[in-house]
Amino acid sequence: MSTIQLTLVQIDNYGPWTVTPEPRREMDLQTLQSRLFADIAQFVGSRDGYVFFTRFDNMIAVTNGIGRPAHKTLQESIRNRYPVTISLGVGVADTPVDALEVATEEIQAAGSAQDETRTEVLAGEFLPADSARTLTIAHFDVKNATGKYTDRLNEFDSFIEIECGYASLMEYMRRTHGALSFFVGGDNIIAVCPELSTADYRAAVDHVDSDVGVALQVGIGRGDSAHEAGYAAKHALEDCRYSGTTVEFGEQAVATSDD
Amino acid sequence: MSTIQLTLVQIDNYGPWTVTPEPRREMDLQTLQSRLFADIAQFVGSRDGYVFFTRFDNMIAVTNGIGRPAHKTLQESIRNRYPVTISLGVGVADTPVDALEVATEEIQAAGSAQDETRTEVLAGEFLPADSARTLTIAHFDVKNATGKYTDRLNEFDSFIEIECGYASLMEYMRRTHGALSFFVGGDNIIAVCPELSTADYRAAVDHVDSDVGVALQVGIGRGDSAHEAGYAAKHALEDCRYSGTTVEFGEQAVATSDD
Amino acid sequence: MSTIQLTLVQIDNYGPWTVTPEPRREMDLQTLQSRLFADIAQFVGSRDGYVFFTRFDNMIAVTNGIGRPAHKTLQESIRNRYPVTISLGVGVADTPVDALEVATEEIQAAGSAQDETRTEVLAGEFLPADSARTLTIAHFDVKNATGKYTDRLNEFDSFIEIECGYASLMEYMRRTHGALSFFVGGDNIIAVCPELSTADYRAAVDHVDSDVGVALQVGIGRGDSAHEAGYAAKHALEDCRYSGTTVEFGEQAVATSDD
Amino acid sequence: MSTIQLTLVQIDNYGPWTVTPEPRREMDLQTLQSRLFADIAQFVGSRDGYVFFTRFDNMIAVTNGIGRPAHKTLQESIRNRYPVTISLGVGVADTPVDALEVATEEIQAAGSAQDETRTEVLAGEFLPADSARTLTIAHFDVKNATGKYTDRLNEFDSFIEIECGYASLMEYMRRTHGALSFFVGGDNIIAVCPELSTADYRAAVDHVDSDVGVALQVGIGRGDSAHEAGYAAKHALEDCRYSGTTVEFGEQAVATSDD
Repeated sequence: MSTIQLTLVQIDNYGPWTVTPEPRREMDLQTLQSRLFADIAQFVGSRDGYVFFTRFDNMIAVTNGIGRPAHKTLQESIRNRYPVTISLGVGVADTPVDALEVATEEIQAAGSAQDETRTEVLAGEFLPADSARTLTIAHFDVKNATGKYTDRLNEFDSFIEIECGYASLMEYMRRTHGALSFFVGGDNIIAVCPELSTADYRAAVDHVDSDVGVALQVGIGRGDSAHEAGYAAKHALEDCRYSGTTVEFGEQAVATSDD
Repeated sequence: MSTIQLTLVQIDNYGPWTVTPEPRREMDLQTLQSRLFADIAQFVGSRDGYVFFTRFDNMIAVTNGIGRPAHKTLQESIRNRYPVTISLGVGVADTPVDALEVATEEIQAAGSAQDETRTEVLAGEFLPADSARTLTIAHFDVKNATGKYTDRLNEFDSFIEIECGYASLMEYMRRTHGALSFFVGGDNIIAVCPELSTADYRAAVDHVDSDVGVALQVGIGRGDSAHEAGYAAKHALEDCRYSGTTVEFGEQAVATSDD
Repeated sequence: MSTIQLTLVQIDNYGPWTVTPEPRREMDLQTLQSRLFADIAQFVGSRDGYVFFTRFDNMIAVTNGIGRPAHKTLQESIRNRYPVTISLGVGVADTPVDALEVATEEIQAAGSAQDETRTEVLAGEFLPADSARTLTIAHFDVKNATGKYTDRLNEFDSFIEIECGYASLMEYMRRTHGALSFFVGGDNIIAVCPELSTADYRAAVDHVDSDVGVALQVGIGRGDSAHEAGYAAKHALEDCRYSGTTVEFGEQAVATSDD
Repeated sequence: MSTIQLTLVQIDNYGPWTVTPEPRREMDLQTLQSRLFADIAQFVGSRDGYVFFTRFDNMIAVTNGIGRPAHKTLQESIRNRYPVTISLGVGVADTPVDALEVATEEIQAAGSAQDETRTEVLAGEFLPADSARTLTIAHFDVKNATGKYTDRLNEFDSFIEIECGYASLMEYMRRTHGALSFFVGGDNIIAVCPELSTADYRAAVDHVDSDVGVALQVGIGRGDSAHEAGYAAKHALEDCRYSGTTVEFGEQAVATSDD
């Protein structure tokens, strides 16, 4: 039974655009990319979804509960306000990576990311309105990152530590569980997961510690939307911080923030 | 002779703020972080500097030619428009990592990143207005990333490949040359470097290929500002793309876009 | 039967904030205000509502179909990303000014706009989900504004002409019909109206012409949301432009862009 | 001796763009316009200039001290990040309206605002770097606007009062002194003025009071940049508020915020 709906957001023909007719100023590209992400974060987030910047020209969104009309409105709004357009591929599955596989194929089937005639694809299946759609979000961070890194190392060396922890975790979670893990700033990593046990999360934390020496802790939440699950995960992570534990499950929220 | 000026931008007491009095909605935090970065990118970029988002709560800027008054104006503008404030540490040196070391220490000396009484530090030395300040920017990307990854793999697996290439390169360039490498979206990595030879860059590319199997190419530029050097690097990278070469040096720009 | 739902958005205690502890840089205030408006325009607009900047510290929104949960999410999102908070008063009525009267009173009853303890009011009644909620939007612009003004006068004198036309129309429509008219840039004015006849609109256009010598044309649309009605009005105004007529009614849209 | 430099910012061929191929969603246009204004406010404001939104598709900036290279960088940055481009006309004169007259003519001479082949005009003369460039900013607001209007009337009726006061003042100052007055939100009006006496300002306030019954007060500042003059004006207006006076001149700032 499929319960996770993911949307792949891909800027159409972006690479060529960035160098036509001449390479564009890098800080303008950075501004464009991060504001586009911010706008999508507001659009999706105010509908209780999540979006991750990933590579910026490709972003991955958890869109449980967000249907085709809203996806169309998003495309139209971006087209009206940016010099670029976006394609959206949607997939539903039980496991995050399977949903993304479908979402990606929907866009790939319509043409290359650098096909200048392929614009504003909107393809894929959406979760039926009344279907079960409970998903799991795990929110990891680094134990005492400020004391160990930020306040002691130069910022790049702090960043290397966090980055290594992230690279190790993302690869492990992908390979072992089909989960998708995203760095979201600071020392925070948010993972979209299938149902996993305490032992599974503990094994992931142990793997990263033995692999690259970075000590993580994790709060896990479940809910009918990314926001609901993610919010429960944040609270569970607070429990880790206060009690010094490594893995905490949150109670399932009974209501979204919209009530 | 010091020729590189770096600024560390650190959001004051950000971690605690994100969970006070309750954890804040993740998509609001993502929006805040990416728009703050975008605003700094516009401020610094329109003065021919570069800024990289790094961990978002800590950002690293190349600020050759940008003095103390502009740094103060930036702090004031952020304070007036955001619910957070920023500290700025500035360092000058010959080697990027040395400049960052100084910049970081300037902020660390004033207190912890999570010290709630430490706000809006502005500390460090600036490059004298008339000093030599030529720096080097290297712009890497992945050979045929669209054909090999984006159009073939699911987006997360594409991202893992790019991320592995980045992690390998950032660590190598930091350790071997004191260079600072930043992922800037798509398949692009921009490195702030000391003066290096063609052989040095070829060795870096070879290292990443043998380490993680990702094939890079690189354009290198020099100039008196990050924009000037980076723009020459972009043109050199275009030369790689058209001629199939792996390492290309750009001609030094004789004028910035501001002339 | 009430069919119009208006929301008054008021920044809490904004005046004092702009001068505490010292007056803040004007361009930072302008940036804050216009970005706050833009964010609300995206939030409300993607839910098929309209918002007008009015005085920027007070904005008026047409929120047919947007309920209490979304209003709460908006308040939370602003609080998380801006240094200010907003109060929202909601009113429903048959006539726009009556709905606004209620919406304003809801906020006024909770305290002064400059009461520093009054924050994030959310008060008022919402249209029931299944109630009739057809409303009327009239979109006016100035006949041949580019040829008569923009390409001939200095920009301020052009602006005076447009501004005089607007001032005359807003006062007339408010007094005569309880309609609310908003300048939306260029030579465009959008009015939220009760049901009016062709003769009513013609009289309004004639009034402005004889009052200040500005020649208007107007397209009128009806629909269940501001977007739907406004979109029909835009098409009707295009009819004026092509056929040279002064008042045109659009066909009622049978579907919103979200279908 | 010319001391005021004004820049007219005009979006190229904007009217036709807003309805091609179909009318665009109004809230997207509002977002585009207000964010474009915000970006220009940050660009100009961080260089101690001022910009006013006027009609949004045409904006008026006070650009004393901002030269041609920065104007070019602004055009490039907008082109890289928006679906529209901007033309810039620059004029210098002693009197604001004369400077604007020149600035407008520079753009008009290059073609109509709706000429689709006229893009990114950059024309006009700039103040020499070492010339005298002291200008005057007057900052008006309405006495006790919160108590008289905001907390008592519905928001539209409050807005009508403020709008009437503004329309009366803008017309009077333009006709009598060649000054340019801009509504900047709330109950605030900022005027770019030639040198005027206390009696001149008192006459303006009296005119508005007798014309439309709105009671204004005004602080006046002088400086080498709009920010410097405007900041002194804000402080002078604070003096009005605390002492109950109607016209106050600020002391000339001896240093900008950039020192």
